[in-house]
Amino acid sequence: MTKIGTVYGLGLGPGDQELMSVKSDRLLRNAKHVAFFRKAGRKGQARQMVQGLLAENAIEFPMEYPVTTEIPVSDPRYNEILSAFYTEVAAHVRALAESGEDVIVLCEGDPFFYGSFMHLFTRLKDVVPVEVVPAITGMSGSWTATGAPITWGDDVLTVLMGTLDEDKLTRHMQDTDALVVMKIGRNFDKVVRALKASGKFDDAWIVQFATMPNQTVTKLSEMTDKVTPYFSIVIVHGQGRRP
Amino acid sequence: MTKIGTVYGLGLGPGDQELMSVKSDRLLRNAKHVAFFRKAGRKGQARQMVQGLLAENAIEFPMEYPVTTEIPVSDPRYNEILSAFYTEVAAHVRALAESGEDVIVLCEGDPFFYGSFMHLFTRLKDVVPVEVVPAITGMSGSWTATGAPITWGDDVLTVLMGTLDEDKLTRHMQDTDALVVMKIGRNFDKVVRALKASGKFDDAWIVQFATMPNQTVTKLSEMTDKVTPYFSIVIVHGQGRRP
Repeated sequence: MTKIGTVYGLGLGPGDQELMSVKSDRLLRNAKHVAFFRKAGRKGQARQMVQGLLAENAIEFPMEYPVTTEIPVSDPRYNEILSAFYTEVAAHVRALAESGEDVIVLCEGDPFFYGSFMHLFTRLKDVVPVEVVPAITGMSGSWTATGAPITWGDDVLTVLMGTLDEDKLTRHMQDTDALVVMKIGRNFDKVVRALKASGKFDDAWIVQFATMPNQTVTKLSEMTDKVTPYFSIVIVHGQGRRP
Repeated sequence: MTKIGTVYGLGLGPGDQELMSVKSDRLLRNAKHVAFFRKAGRKGQARQMVQGLLAENAIEFPMEYPVTTEIPVSDPRYNEILSAFYTEVAAHVRALAESGEDVIVLCEGDPFFYGSFMHLFTRLKDVVPVEVVPAITGMSGSWTATGAPITWGDDVLTVLMGTLDEDKLTRHMQDTDALVVMKIGRNFDKVVRALKASGKFDDAWIVQFATMPNQTVTKLSEMTDKVTPYFSIVIVHGQGRRP
């Protein structure tokens, strides 16, 4: 009887390889099968994060997202296409595990905090062993980059996705002390309007490529360049009790 | 002229030593001066997390909290006593740095996410070089322990401290998808009432000692033991879009 392999959802952290956990670093360097999501025609953000760390004979499995740019997210076909894609790549990973091989799935940030790994996880968790290795989130990398604590005392922290409706964004921004906004890219103008409506715009920072060599940290009100679609996070610090 | 040393706010992560970053691990093993907060008469949670990792000749500086149990948190004297304590230990750390020594300050979880390091940080950042090393938060360790993603799609995540008023807890719990509650200990009964009032009690988990050998993961509704005062985190998972 063949031993069944384990699928690892391996958190890579915010980008700096030294901020990867000792455990992720060890598993990566010894990995035989390495899977990762990427957009068609790109190298893949997660794959680039581990440049130089993989063994020479590692076997890579790029999981290329289907092109869905023509279809609105609200169209049921959007979900159907993505669902079929996740099911297909999950079958490949499952087959590897059932043949006795461990498979490392590279995950930007922390695997269970937004991100794509969970769509593999739900399809695999009841059929093969799956282990998730947590990691430093992109938001931790971002607030560290601002050089100020995100939360003090009993501050409330709210994490919002820029994809939310403007009204919902504004309401949640008004009702929190500290704030993190992710998925900014195409939602930049909407996020800015919501920040202004909630009175938080003047205290907002934008961190791009946190912990990476091209990291930038800017007050949002002083931002002149166009925002990058990836690795952009808005931060508003809490102002809680500080003895 | 003496070189000035650097003060490192070193994030240790949730507890498992293998989940420490490669950078924190390296800095720790080479540290000459290691400072950490602890309650009087205790070993210190952060110090225990690094057991076996420090060099034999490392010089330890335990920063013992003054006993404030007799004074209500709302009493101005509470803040005054804590403030004097932080100023005193900051002066010691500053003197070490000014004599040319690097000083590692051990921080449970991520230094800029709640926690005590920020009170040293504000007192030192303008007088000596301070570097903060982010880390995996206790909440990441906790949601990973539940074996399910905390957030999907565009879920809203809210992080609350159990020390908040019951009304404020309830209101924020009602108005979020995913939820993390920290500082549970003495606030346990209040947190449970707020979870019930907000309709989230039946979906709540409590994780104690996440990633540590004595980790427990329990549906809150099935909890029979008394909650531990440390390292207890309540988790309610989001239910966002999942193709």
